[in-house]
Amino acid sequence: MARLVQKFGGTSVADVSKIRKAAEIIVAAAAEGHEVTTVVSAMGHTTDHLVALAEQIFPEPGMRSAREMDMLLATGEQVSIALLTMAIQSLGYQARSFTGAQAGIITESQHGVAKIQEIQSDRLESSLARGEIAVVAGFQGVTENHELTTLGRGGSDTTAVALSAALGADRCDIYTDVRGVYTADPRIISDARRLPSVSYEEMLELAATGAQVMNARSVELAMDNQVQVRVRSTFAPEDQGTLITHRVSSPEYTIAGIACDMNSAVITLKSLSPLNDTRPLEGISALFTRLQELAIQTDMVMVLKHEDEPSQELAFTIEKGSLPRVQQLIESLASSLGNPLMQVETDIAKVSVVGRRLTTRPEVVAGVFESLNLAAIPVQMVATGDMRISVLMPAKHGREAVKLIHERFNLAEGTFTT
Amino acid sequence: MARLVQKFGGTSVADVSKIRKAAEIIVAAAAEGHEVTTVVSAMGHTTDHLVALAEQIFPEPGMRSAREMDMLLATGEQVSIALLTMAIQSLGYQARSFTGAQAGIITESQHGVAKIQEIQSDRLESSLARGEIAVVAGFQGVTENHELTTLGRGGSDTTAVALSAALGADRCDIYTDVRGVYTADPRIISDARRLPSVSYEEMLELAATGAQVMNARSVELAMDNQVQVRVRSTFAPEDQGTLITHRVSSPEYTIAGIACDMNSAVITLKSLSPLNDTRPLEGISALFTRLQELAIQTDMVMVLKHEDEPSQELAFTIEKGSLPRVQQLIESLASSLGNPLMQVETDIAKVSVVGRRLTTRPEVVAGVFESLNLAAIPVQMVATGDMRISVLMPAKHGREAVKLIHERFNLAEGTFTT
Repeated sequence: MARLVQKFGGTSVADVSKIRKAAEIIVAAAAEGHEVTTVVSAMGHTTDHLVALAEQIFPEPGMRSAREMDMLLATGEQVSIALLTMAIQSLGYQARSFTGAQAGIITESQHGVAKIQEIQSDRLESSLARGEIAVVAGFQGVTENHELTTLGRGGSDTTAVALSAALGADRCDIYTDVRGVYTADPRIISDARRLPSVSYEEMLELAATGAQVMNARSVELAMDNQVQVRVRSTFAPEDQGTLITHRVSSPEYTIAGIACDMNSAVITLKSLSPLNDTRPLEGISALFTRLQELAIQTDMVMVLKHEDEPSQELAFTIEKGSLPRVQQLIESLASSLGNPLMQVETDIAKVSVVGRRLTTRPEVVAGVFESLNLAAIPVQMVATGDMRISVLMPAKHGREAVKLIHERFNLAEGTFTT
Repeated sequence: MARLVQKFGGTSVADVSKIRKAAEIIVAAAAEGHEVTTVVSAMGHTTDHLVALAEQIFPEPGMRSAREMDMLLATGEQVSIALLTMAIQSLGYQARSFTGAQAGIITESQHGVAKIQEIQSDRLESSLARGEIAVVAGFQGVTENHELTTLGRGGSDTTAVALSAALGADRCDIYTDVRGVYTADPRIISDARRLPSVSYEEMLELAATGAQVMNARSVELAMDNQVQVRVRSTFAPEDQGTLITHRVSSPEYTIAGIACDMNSAVITLKSLSPLNDTRPLEGISALFTRLQELAIQTDMVMVLKHEDEPSQELAFTIEKGSLPRVQQLIESLASSLGNPLMQVETDIAKVSVVGRRLTTRPEVVAGVFESLNLAAIPVQMVATGDMRISVLMPAKHGREAVKLIHERFNLAEGTFTT
């Protein structure tokens, strides 16, 4: 007997027939004698529908009324847990649903992007001890003050991993609409290869660079708590999917995969403080401190000093969704930044090559540039690190770039290894 | 400055534009300096939609999984409170939403028909003290054990009245899609007259006999706690509607109104225990005890003993929705009832005349029978009491009967008074 946590995403519970299918997977695990806790997202496009309702009331409801947005969005998962629990019961098994609050998922108080602070798992433990399948609402929690919160995008993955850690689960199965983690998005690259396993670190980079299989925070949480995660398909549950685990247990290869993120925007601030060289850095520091306080993630960051000009230039990428808040923030800090010129680009693809110790392998960087150069794809910004190379380019070249790099390193065959 | 509780039903918040309209009514009261607590139902047909989803999983979900139905249905009001709160905020007022649990509405544990046990109003009081408009989810509560519950049909009215009592509100305004309480359903009787006020007792009878303006439990609660209730229209908020209050403050008339309930079913048990005269009453007693435990309300009850037969006959009315549970119950008690023949009729109208001290006014009973007799409307069962006369007839005659009785007593003019 193992203790399992299973998570089903929105596409896996998009309608009643899919909910029934998920229930069959859950019940099959229970029938094998496992203790099962299930985490579930809102059905299909429920969240989008709820957001659209709020947007009819005022624009940017998440900014203007973050508490009420959480109140609203938390209903999506609550519908799913009730229906999934009924579906399990209809198959003759004992099951019980739990809102985030009932499951003891205590979060900090930042609405919309709350972090899990603690899991008080005694009610779940009692449910499992009674032989029930516990069905928990993903994406949501409650503050110590009884305020409902949501965990932000990909929050259900975070719930599943955090519960796995709290319950000491043997494994966390993330059921989704893809069969695992691939060397590139199989919708773009038809011969992309599924990785049988991948390390936490590589998965973290893939997630951070646009692979939508799992969100980065949940991978980080799995790494910190050594939770064994398996990404697998609801629609082909016999597949073993991809195991996300320690580096030592995952096979050796240089490049794990290529991700393409179409959801980035680049902000460029030009002519930062031409009068005084010390002020712009203070302004930049204030800017990034505020971004962190607002839980807005930046990815690529570059500061340039042109030889022939006294001014500096700052460029960084953020998620498109954060754009209005960031623009507002920059306007409020304009004077301390030396009233810079702000440019915003949203028609951008961020293509990232994720692998191991890339800084020691100049042939990877060289190969990436060569591929793009041969195809005359313009490169707007580059960031390299030990585990990834990210390249910004006009959005229309994104797919082609992934394809060229995938071919260049022969990832379909998996021969580009150390 | 007064302390007000306002309740908006499902039709009053059916879409975002109606939610905005409700917000305007609320804000107008706040602008006059009143402290406002608002109770809101699920939007339009949300509850029906959720029930339909559950019924795709298994039939009678409310019976098979009452806890999960509550989990599911409670989301409907949670969506409404979030959107209504945003709509109030968009008009520039401070507002805060509260789930039933957050509002401190503690209930007993019977899912689907939970009774309010206590209201811990300290969080609402703090919100009002901060100058916020408090927006509370109707229809729902929480047990001491943190289980979500719902209060059953008309539960939002109950929430509003119970909160009015707990908060010591000066008045409870029930905003709905009609302009008040009428002498008969204005959709049936075009010249039905609106009552400026009606006593708790009369309203209770009207509600119990099918007037859908307010549910009976909430009227009873208002009576017990002396809550002044005003029923008024969301779409004509300038109207004063109907005040439900003490008998002494309401004007004198004999007949307050006529209600027509198409939602009743009659169960007849024939040949109750032909062998032993003492057993059937034990069986009947067991039956009614169980009905009470299941919170199934019966209305008209008759026990007949035919002169020429040793057996008894029992007939009673219930809501159609309770039918499957009641049939199942009778089958389980069949032997103690002497294996009776069960007949079920659902094509029934229950027409009720509600007024004052009707038992001392035989001309009312006589007038009702005369009207029906002249029109050759068959009467299947009659029950008379001090405050009402209810007559069962084939469903197709219901509207006509209301019309005839309304004319017979000249209710459009209001001349039939003491």
